[in-house]
Amino acid sequence: MGGTKNKAVYLKSYPAGLPGPSHFETRVVETPAPRDGEMLMRTVWMSVDPYMRGRMRPDVKSYVPPFSLDQPLDGGAVSEVVESNNSGFKKGDYVVAFQGGWKEYWISNGDGLTRVDPGLAPLSAYLGVLGMPGLTAWAGLTQILQPNPGDTVFVSGAAGAVGSVVCQLAKIKGARVIASAGSKEKCDWLLKEGGADVALNYRDYKNAGALTKALAEAAPDGINCYFENVGGMHLEAALNNIAFGARIALCGMISVYNNTELEPGPPNLAFLIARSAKMQGFIVSIYLHLAMQFASEVAPLLAQGKIKFRESVYDGLDEAPNAFIGLFHGENFGKAVIRVGPDRA
Amino acid sequence: MGGTKNKAVYLKSYPAGLPGPSHFETRVVETPAPRDGEMLMRTVWMSVDPYMRGRMRPDVKSYVPPFSLDQPLDGGAVSEVVESNNSGFKKGDYVVAFQGGWKEYWISNGDGLTRVDPGLAPLSAYLGVLGMPGLTAWAGLTQILQPNPGDTVFVSGAAGAVGSVVCQLAKIKGARVIASAGSKEKCDWLLKEGGADVALNYRDYKNAGALTKALAEAAPDGINCYFENVGGMHLEAALNNIAFGARIALCGMISVYNNTELEPGPPNLAFLIARSAKMQGFIVSIYLHLAMQFASEVAPLLAQGKIKFRESVYDGLDEAPNAFIGLFHGENFGKAVIRVGPDRA
Repeated sequence: MGGTKNKAVYLKSYPAGLPGPSHFETRVVETPAPRDGEMLMRTVWMSVDPYMRGRMRPDVKSYVPPFSLDQPLDGGAVSEVVESNNSGFKKGDYVVAFQGGWKEYWISNGDGLTRVDPGLAPLSAYLGVLGMPGLTAWAGLTQILQPNPGDTVFVSGAAGAVGSVVCQLAKIKGARVIASAGSKEKCDWLLKEGGADVALNYRDYKNAGALTKALAEAAPDGINCYFENVGGMHLEAALNNIAFGARIALCGMISVYNNTELEPGPPNLAFLIARSAKMQGFIVSIYLHLAMQFASEVAPLLAQGKIKFRESVYDGLDEAPNAFIGLFHGENFGKAVIRVGPDRA
Repeated sequence: MGGTKNKAVYLKSYPAGLPGPSHFETRVVETPAPRDGEMLMRTVWMSVDPYMRGRMRPDVKSYVPPFSLDQPLDGGAVSEVVESNNSGFKKGDYVVAFQGGWKEYWISNGDGLTRVDPGLAPLSAYLGVLGMPGLTAWAGLTQILQPNPGDTVFVSGAAGAVGSVVCQLAKIKGARVIASAGSKEKCDWLLKEGGADVALNYRDYKNAGALTKALAEAAPDGINCYFENVGGMHLEAALNNIAFGARIALCGMISVYNNTELEPGPPNLAFLIARSAKMQGFIVSIYLHLAMQFASEVAPLLAQGKIKFRESVYDGLDEAPNAFIGLFHGENFGKAVIRVGPDRA
């Protein structure tokens, strides 16, 4: 049996600074026929996530190995089993995995696949609110920030795939939520649907001093919890406003991912001492063992409409580089997903 | 009954930058006679501590109120009860308190005094290894860093009142200890008596890059715990070397206490994310409820000679400003204490 001709996106060169279209190239590849125990998978939805930028630095030791040049990129995807020589899965099954992204077809031996239920939520949700971003949000909130009812929770990147879930879960847990996002449209959504009590458009604040003042007005008793997706002036302004005993979950610092030189950190870290506050970094993989607990808490909230989610949908594999590049320009609203092939679920 | 003529040190002006002798003035004062329920206290030993610098900034909200100009300074001291109209204490009792420093005599109503046993340890030890610095070291280590046997613990300011206790307790708990201090003499003591496996004289390293390299050689598997007393290049170098799941206890940042402008923080905070590491600031007062547990663990170790301590002793109240100023020049080796009056215990 012959292979399947299809498309995959290759990394042509490592970006220095912001990634652009020239760093990527779509090529036609031949996916081999599945052997014994293997399956031919069709990628339906793929994810682009900020952490992928870290895999585009050959020189930096990170928690995932760097991508190789002149090889197809990889990443999280929801795929359909098209042909199965594996007794664990049958044709027509849908699975989510940390594999399958950036290509139309791929071969799996079944390792690392989680079957998903198209009846519970749209397939793409398994890349967002019910997937890695949702687990990231839930784990940072429940394992690190642990807000008490009445606490003030500040969330940066609040309209993003992670931040929007943090805001809504924090609100459900009885916290007062201050959200920061990069447009009026995002702020409006956060106030109306996203669980925010206050929404700040950070583009209105030219530096950390201005944002510090806005936060002080929004949180006169200080910030008890800060979910950090952004870095830079957000972290400095948040530190200026932390309450005694505050917790900061460091999830991402998208503002610095494309810097070619390291930029200085906040000058006010010593506030952590005076306010006996904690700052804890995390990657979602350390909480994978809690995935079932996460799903059993969040899936019903989603089904009941108590958690809303937004997606920026890109159509076709050729759009994947643009979706990824958009992450660093604030162009996506909610989870950025690419419909690689027809979703018939 | 008349008052007692004696001396007290006044704050003449708030230092901008490093404190110097001109910011202080010794004046003769009259301490009134104790009234009903009060006692006349004689200060035997007083403490100077880095946190006092924070009380010399009228404009900065800190965890203790600022000192007033043209008033006597105050701070921790061991005092003798000279005259008692308080049924809780009798003449000849020795007490430690967050009061009594910077003066020869003072009046107490008994609040905030802890009786100390001159038979258990020298009186001055209640300002150091058995006092607030000792509790600070023990709490940061046991409540935040929680080293496992075999972990690598890095301690900056390691020859100081806090750091030297951290090193020895960490060693007793089975950790491998890397100490940083500011002279060969201090490093020699740390290796011989202070529990250090490796001692780095930070003056040999001209920047964070050089210190990063030295730490990488000393801790090839990374640093699991970092006890931070210093800030600046120490924090940056430590972050470059943290192991996955590392804990950082932020106790002090003496390198920045005298800055008139905030200096940038470390550029590599994002390592906290990739290595799922925690940085927790604390002030010792949040652990005061553990003081008995601390004393019951550390006092026997001291009595058995398993914990050693060093003191820089200054003689006479007039020397107190010099002792304080010395804190910021690395001039003290171990706890800086001032013998204000004769120690007859």
